[in-house]
Amino acid sequence: MSFDRLIDRIKTMNNPTVAGLDPKLDYIPAYIKEAAYEKYGKTAEGAAEALFEFNKGLIDALCDIVPAVKPQAAYYEMYGWQGVRTLQRTIAYAKSKGMFVITDGKRNDIGTTMEAYAKAHLGTTAVEDECFEAFGSDALTVNAYLGTDGVKPVLNVCKENDKGMFILVKTSNPSSGELQDRTLDDGMTIYRTMGQMCEKWGEELPGKYGYSGVGAVVGATYPRQLGELRKELPHTFFLVPGYGAQGGGAADVAPAFDANGIGAIINSSRGIMCAWKKEEGLDPKEYAAAARREAIRMRDEIAAELSHE
Amino acid sequence: MSFDRLIDRIKTMNNPTVAGLDPKLDYIPAYIKEAAYEKYGKTAEGAAEALFEFNKGLIDALCDIVPAVKPQAAYYEMYGWQGVRTLQRTIAYAKSKGMFVITDGKRNDIGTTMEAYAKAHLGTTAVEDECFEAFGSDALTVNAYLGTDGVKPVLNVCKENDKGMFILVKTSNPSSGELQDRTLDDGMTIYRTMGQMCEKWGEELPGKYGYSGVGAVVGATYPRQLGELRKELPHTFFLVPGYGAQGGGAADVAPAFDANGIGAIINSSRGIMCAWKKEEGLDPKEYAAAARREAIRMRDEIAAELSHE
Repeated sequence: MSFDRLIDRIKTMNNPTVAGLDPKLDYIPAYIKEAAYEKYGKTAEGAAEALFEFNKGLIDALCDIVPAVKPQAAYYEMYGWQGVRTLQRTIAYAKSKGMFVITDGKRNDIGTTMEAYAKAHLGTTAVEDECFEAFGSDALTVNAYLGTDGVKPVLNVCKENDKGMFILVKTSNPSSGELQDRTLDDGMTIYRTMGQMCEKWGEELPGKYGYSGVGAVVGATYPRQLGELRKELPHTFFLVPGYGAQGGGAADVAPAFDANGIGAIINSSRGIMCAWKKEEGLDPKEYAAAARREAIRMRDEIAAELSHE
Repeated sequence: MSFDRLIDRIKTMNNPTVAGLDPKLDYIPAYIKEAAYEKYGKTAEGAAEALFEFNKGLIDALCDIVPAVKPQAAYYEMYGWQGVRTLQRTIAYAKSKGMFVITDGKRNDIGTTMEAYAKAHLGTTAVEDECFEAFGSDALTVNAYLGTDGVKPVLNVCKENDKGMFILVKTSNPSSGELQDRTLDDGMTIYRTMGQMCEKWGEELPGKYGYSGVGAVVGATYPRQLGELRKELPHTFFLVPGYGAQGGGAADVAPAFDANGIGAIINSSRGIMCAWKKEEGLDPKEYAAAARREAIRMRDEIAAELSHE
């Protein structure tokens, strides 16, 4: 009903980070792609197979030190239903290794349609009297421009299945301010208003650490807003993109954490996935070991920053 | 680069409507489901097969009188990758029958991630030197809470592939006002501000009828706002949900059209898909014929309303 399972894992591993699995073909070592193309051709199926093999190596290398993975749905949809099958296989594999899985789909709709998304990604689907998990993730990112009608169905599915959601509040991109930073007639910005709505929705999914199952996406690229929101939203757990490749550093993400050093999980995608490209002379077959080294470096950098606070 | 192809079809058929393909299992006649379960079991594959057969019948019955279909991605994702394969097959089948296809996915993200969604749904995907269409739709619904960074990549793909997008402006649901109706410090509501952004983004995709390739989703359930936005957004084509099952009637959607009777397309999902359940004593095998009768009734009702104006 909350992010307790995620926070438990973060505490056990002493690591508040999540590895983004946004596997572009460019990020994948040639030997993996060639093997996949040999089997399935330079097709959607071939690409989807390469994506899965790449992810599998990363998950194996990270699962005992990184609590969670965050596959980004767009990079799987790009390869059609074959890519979407790889998304499902990736989620299943990560879960089999004990990882917490956040599907970054930014889904949004209303009523029974939003319920369908929630069942698809977090719940179960019924075909007459048979039930199965379509994607079976642990949490889903959600865009709440449509208001409560777009969140309530997810709340219900989270409640029944002990899952969570992260709502877009203040995103990491340069143009996030065009709408999100605009001030409403009561003097509040849109992103702060959205944050308050997360607190309210979260009341239905309370957790033992004080954080509800309704989290917020707040970018590392806006550290001032991150600190401001941390104070204003005491029950809202943060998913923080924008660390590393997008420019945020450990000092930028520190304000996302509370006095107990919890309250947020920091995402790194390219930094971890492409670590193998940055180590000069590295055998590409060692890509997963390089990812693990970068994940450890990131963990330790954030820990050092938090111990200064 | 615009909605010219869609408007051409609307004019040829004298019918500004789109049939929503949101195929819940409850909507599908038992004989279709039983045949699919017999072949594939009560599984994701069985459900996905039933969805496709149901859609195929509807498309066959509607393709010469209804210009477009709008599959709702959530109802396909619910059945996992097998459901997503049915989405792809449905789009391909509708296009083979000459229909314009709007994928209702409300996708949103930034930069290369949004580009991946745009390529997936509207453009082409490359695997090395091989290119294919992953889903190959004609238009995609988009949520622009993230600002220009989330729209620009779609604009580029639309430009290259003669496709369009519909951005959520004022949605049809009861709680759409929670955020969308709030007033900004310049006195404009959020939905009007979003509408103005559509006009601006649309400048990159001009069309021969004056309507750009950046449309707006505006619900039939808010006729006053519909009329107000029609005047304020002269280059923005409207996709109007909320007709029929959600409560909007022909009089409610009339304000969506300009003085020439164009400028909008009205969606009906349940009304058309479930028409067969409302005709007493009807053989369920006639579900597609019933859908056609309802589509003709809707077309004529809207035409009558527009001729009064």
